[in-house]
Amino acid sequence: MEKNKTYLFASILVMLALLSLVPPIAAQEESIESLTESVDSLGTALTFIWLLLCGGLVFLMHAGFSLVEAGFTRAKNTANILMKNLLTVCLGVLIYWLVGWAIMYGDDVGGIFGFSQFCLSGADNAIWNAWFFQMVFAATGATIVSGAMAERTNFKAYLVFTGLLVAIIYPVYGHWVWSGADFALLTGDGSWIVQMCGASFHDFAGSGVVHSIGGYAALAGVIILGPRLGKFKNGKPQVIPGHNITFGFLGVLLLWLGWLGFNGGSTLDGSDAFMNLAVANTFLAAAAGAVAAMILTWVKTGKPDPSLTANGVLAGLVAITAPCGSVENWAAIVIGLIAGAIVYAGVMFNEAVLKVDDPVGAIAVHGYCGTWGLLAVGIFSVGMGNGILDGAVYAAGAPGLLYGGVNQFMVQVVGALAAIIWAFVVGLIVFKLIDVVIGLRVSEREELEGLDITEHGIRAYPEYITE
Amino acid sequence: MEKNKTYLFASILVMLALLSLVPPIAAQEESIESLTESVDSLGTALTFIWLLLCGGLVFLMHAGFSLVEAGFTRAKNTANILMKNLLTVCLGVLIYWLVGWAIMYGDDVGGIFGFSQFCLSGADNAIWNAWFFQMVFAATGATIVSGAMAERTNFKAYLVFTGLLVAIIYPVYGHWVWSGADFALLTGDGSWIVQMCGASFHDFAGSGVVHSIGGYAALAGVIILGPRLGKFKNGKPQVIPGHNITFGFLGVLLLWLGWLGFNGGSTLDGSDAFMNLAVANTFLAAAAGAVAAMILTWVKTGKPDPSLTANGVLAGLVAITAPCGSVENWAAIVIGLIAGAIVYAGVMFNEAVLKVDDPVGAIAVHGYCGTWGLLAVGIFSVGMGNGILDGAVYAAGAPGLLYGGVNQFMVQVVGALAAIIWAFVVGLIVFKLIDVVIGLRVSEREELEGLDITEHGIRAYPEYITE
Amino acid sequence: MEKNKTYLFASILVMLALLSLVPPIAAQEESIESLTESVDSLGTALTFIWLLLCGGLVFLMHAGFSLVEAGFTRAKNTANILMKNLLTVCLGVLIYWLVGWAIMYGDDVGGIFGFSQFCLSGADNAIWNAWFFQMVFAATGATIVSGAMAERTNFKAYLVFTGLLVAIIYPVYGHWVWSGADFALLTGDGSWIVQMCGASFHDFAGSGVVHSIGGYAALAGVIILGPRLGKFKNGKPQVIPGHNITFGFLGVLLLWLGWLGFNGGSTLDGSDAFMNLAVANTFLAAAAGAVAAMILTWVKTGKPDPSLTANGVLAGLVAITAPCGSVENWAAIVIGLIAGAIVYAGVMFNEAVLKVDDPVGAIAVHGYCGTWGLLAVGIFSVGMGNGILDGAVYAAGAPGLLYGGVNQFMVQVVGALAAIIWAFVVGLIVFKLIDVVIGLRVSEREELEGLDITEHGIRAYPEYITE
Repeated sequence: MEKNKTYLFASILVMLALLSLVPPIAAQEESIESLTESVDSLGTALTFIWLLLCGGLVFLMHAGFSLVEAGFTRAKNTANILMKNLLTVCLGVLIYWLVGWAIMYGDDVGGIFGFSQFCLSGADNAIWNAWFFQMVFAATGATIVSGAMAERTNFKAYLVFTGLLVAIIYPVYGHWVWSGADFALLTGDGSWIVQMCGASFHDFAGSGVVHSIGGYAALAGVIILGPRLGKFKNGKPQVIPGHNITFGFLGVLLLWLGWLGFNGGSTLDGSDAFMNLAVANTFLAAAAGAVAAMILTWVKTGKPDPSLTANGVLAGLVAITAPCGSVENWAAIVIGLIAGAIVYAGVMFNEAVLKVDDPVGAIAVHGYCGTWGLLAVGIFSVGMGNGILDGAVYAAGAPGLLYGGVNQFMVQVVGALAAIIWAFVVGLIVFKLIDVVIGLRVSEREELEGLDITEHGIRAYPEYITE
Repeated sequence: MEKNKTYLFASILVMLALLSLVPPIAAQEESIESLTESVDSLGTALTFIWLLLCGGLVFLMHAGFSLVEAGFTRAKNTANILMKNLLTVCLGVLIYWLVGWAIMYGDDVGGIFGFSQFCLSGADNAIWNAWFFQMVFAATGATIVSGAMAERTNFKAYLVFTGLLVAIIYPVYGHWVWSGADFALLTGDGSWIVQMCGASFHDFAGSGVVHSIGGYAALAGVIILGPRLGKFKNGKPQVIPGHNITFGFLGVLLLWLGWLGFNGGSTLDGSDAFMNLAVANTFLAAAAGAVAAMILTWVKTGKPDPSLTANGVLAGLVAITAPCGSVENWAAIVIGLIAGAIVYAGVMFNEAVLKVDDPVGAIAVHGYCGTWGLLAVGIFSVGMGNGILDGAVYAAGAPGLLYGGVNQFMVQVVGALAAIIWAFVVGLIVFKLIDVVIGLRVSEREELEGLDITEHGIRAYPEYITE
Repeated sequence: MEKNKTYLFASILVMLALLSLVPPIAAQEESIESLTESVDSLGTALTFIWLLLCGGLVFLMHAGFSLVEAGFTRAKNTANILMKNLLTVCLGVLIYWLVGWAIMYGDDVGGIFGFSQFCLSGADNAIWNAWFFQMVFAATGATIVSGAMAERTNFKAYLVFTGLLVAIIYPVYGHWVWSGADFALLTGDGSWIVQMCGASFHDFAGSGVVHSIGGYAALAGVIILGPRLGKFKNGKPQVIPGHNITFGFLGVLLLWLGWLGFNGGSTLDGSDAFMNLAVANTFLAAAAGAVAAMILTWVKTGKPDPSLTANGVLAGLVAITAPCGSVENWAAIVIGLIAGAIVYAGVMFNEAVLKVDDPVGAIAVHGYCGTWGLLAVGIFSVGMGNGILDGAVYAAGAPGLLYGGVNQFMVQVVGALAAIIWAFVVGLIVFKLIDVVIGLRVSEREELEGLDITEHGIRAYPEYITE
């Protein structure tokens, strides 16, 4: 009995000790749950501040575009250009809130467009964050058009087009590519295009969505609009120099900086290391684009040309926007070099063959190099899961031509063509309609006098005596 | 006995097993503690980098202010304007370190001002971080004044005023609103004003603390100073156009970007999602302000006016600064639209009725729209804890008039009046004293020749031939 | 038996209960491990975005340098200056990728240079992040030279020098200081210099690595190059005013903002609170530098001089770059004040004594104030582990002269001399070689006509009539 009692005591002690372990384990369970929540919410917060700051950098691109466009055109149209660029942002903010977001990211309608969340109804902080980052992109698409049509477009007509671009043209194509909808035309698993090509279209940060759309809409615009007075004499293109190259170069540097946010932010995830590859490739391609354009002009004319070199930076940036997270460093350099050549050839082609007048080279930079960037994904993409770029988790899914794949290239061709056709055809229709209803172009007298006086009643530099 | 032995062995085994559980539990306890510390310090670090970067964006506003002010005034005073703006920052940094922080955030003296931590004594990294973010705000308040007083103010006199604003005028009002002291005049639980109104004054990022203070001090300044020579002919205001509208617009875009840091950073917490609402509302109000101002000038004069449109952006930004985290998106747009109208009406009112000369419209933008922003909190605030804006944890406490509350509106009226009275009255006294002791205004000859030559011995653009 | 059975049941129950505790403990173990990983990777992500954004700010400095250099020189050379600065970045990106990183951070060869990872071979996201931040620094070093040699240097010759600086001159000295190699000449534990001095050289963000190297290479350049035509008349220096002081001041503000990234990012750790001390000291020194330079010119000439005041900001920034994390706030102000005096005296000394022509004062700002910053570490460093600056974990190891130490001062003298000798001597050799092979200077006719027309075939401001 004594021993039995001992065993009894022992058992009781054991049970008490055991019970004493339960509370700490339960407490730890709670601590771990609360820690997990904290870590998750820290990760979310990191994404929020990353996208707000990247969005800020993209917003800075509007200062860049304003300066490039103003600097590379004549002083008599500067205030008009600044107003167009500023109003592009303002209308962009309001219309992308009213309509654009809903068409791009609302509930999918047949893979073609979205249709819900107008006026961001039901938004929470995550939606405001996402809207902000997408909104600055949308406004960027619109502002590209303003550059090509500078120095002769009716102000009101331009504003109407900008509104339509941000409300419809941009977000519809954006829906095909970035909505994540199951049937999204170019990227959804259920899309017949994706199934036909055997790969999903990849446009990481918008060589297509932003730049092609802007560039080919601009092409439609300048065709309807016609060239500036004096741009062609007997069919030969004349140089109309910009009034302030310092503004132009400052603009290019601000745009380059903005691209850090444009491409770096496009993982949409602050905790993903992949952004580093995207940024490194972005800077390599930009530098290569400038060097290529400079050397080409140097060889062709005997002197390195500043405005084409500056456009070479932009060419490299536009081209690497789609593939920046899917290609190796050397490929980024090659993509940039080719983009620098394309912008040079594209400007020549537009003037000499198409006989269109694009004062700042926006069509070559954003349109042609945008297309090149989309195709470059199909050529240089390393493909995912093969260990070549381990951290590139948001890269194009399939390998490009150089790595033995054809599917990615096929779908890139389709997506690139879709951007060209959609932006150009809808652009033609819309610009023609605006031309008939409002009048797309200012009068000859107004153009000669300058749009600052005739459209806004002021001069941009009233104290200076100009030629 | 055999069985007893079995039980004995079983019990011993159980106890040993039990003991083997204690070390892992203790180790886990340690791991969890160390993880908790890591997570806490990550959260702190996130706040640090968020506030440093937001502070950087606010610092960029000084470039914006410099450009707006230089661009919208004449070329003969540009170097002077640039020097005033640069020295505003430099004195701001040094004096807010010496005195300003101590008066604003030092130990509370009767709810009226702080008084400790002069020269940031005893600072650690958290204090340096907070000081940096607050310092860039303080310098902003001062620079507003420089715009209104441009083109005729004695340089030394301006520097003395700037020093006093950063040392005393700004931080005293700031103490009433942002110190967090129990008896802080406008926000402390123990303050008779808060108790009387039944709500705490809400000025999220400084429509009052920064903009009203700057704007009404500027009003005092221009009254003492008088208008520029030639501004009024037979009592009629004359247009004196700015010399470089590109600088002006670039400045506005940099200011807009800066406001991302100004409002976004003002949660003072990098882990709080609330910043997204603040930023979205900020951009909506800015865009609405520009559109309203543009349409008004278009309707009134037949042409959309660039400088008033640009000021419309700033009007929207100033107005949304207080309510950006307390109102719904549609309200932000309404607040911005009204601000755009206020800046237009305010500029007209200042010139036609008050007969004061404010070359860049700083009083209308920062003073009147600042007051509007404070009142807007009392009108459009959704109130906290009612589920309308779930994530708005730093919002105004009580609902505004539109949501059935009156307390918040009452305290906003009191706070807005306090800013007007404090800045205007102290401004009048200080400017009068400076006028007597140093002389506030340059001589007529100096003003005609331009302050660049007479105050600094240089010309800003020596190579250009100007009218 | 009944009782024995009871004990048996009890024991079994205890064991079952016990076993039921094992799985939660194991599960918690897993949760804790996965949480630890999440927290670690969040910390890494925070560092990534911090360094990308700081790198972006440093990149913005190229816009700042472009504007300072263009603004403070004549309009006929502006396009050339912009091209030089843009190509400096572009070559910087490409060459630092090809070679520079490998020489600076590759496997150590005798403490003198690195030699591996050419073309970033084997890079992952952490390397791309680090490369990006280091690359923008490297390009900064090069661009300093362009300012001093403005308005008379052959474009091709400049590009060749820039390539060599980024490939060799900069990264070799950088290897001595920042490589972390055991035998790194100035900082490795195994280095004879470190052992001799009893302290490791401390150059936190590059008063030596970036600014001294750039500044003394520039000194070598201007000696080989000679002064601009008309700079000295009968041996007396003449003022050649810059064409646009607004560009100059905007540039200075952008550079100041860039320094937030330059110094703030240089902990290379986003989770370290130390960045706050670095940033606070940076802003205090910059402000003090401007105030000192302004007061000096005011006292000496009767008027506060804008360009020297602007250079005073840069002087303070350059000087605080090395000591910003090792000194108290008051010391940062003293360092800045002295830097403001040095830049004033240095500009006078260069013109009056050395008879060299440095249009933007780059040698005084980056060279002399860079040296001052390195020595200031040896004077004002509080030393680590004594509790004076608790959070300063990346500070200089040993206390400076004022805190009773001599070792830190000794090694700072050695490191400062090493920067001067290395940059100046190699600079002399390289510039001489370039001069012989390519020709360093443009012809007299080209210089008079302006480099924009002769080197690039354009004018920067074709519409304006200039004197």
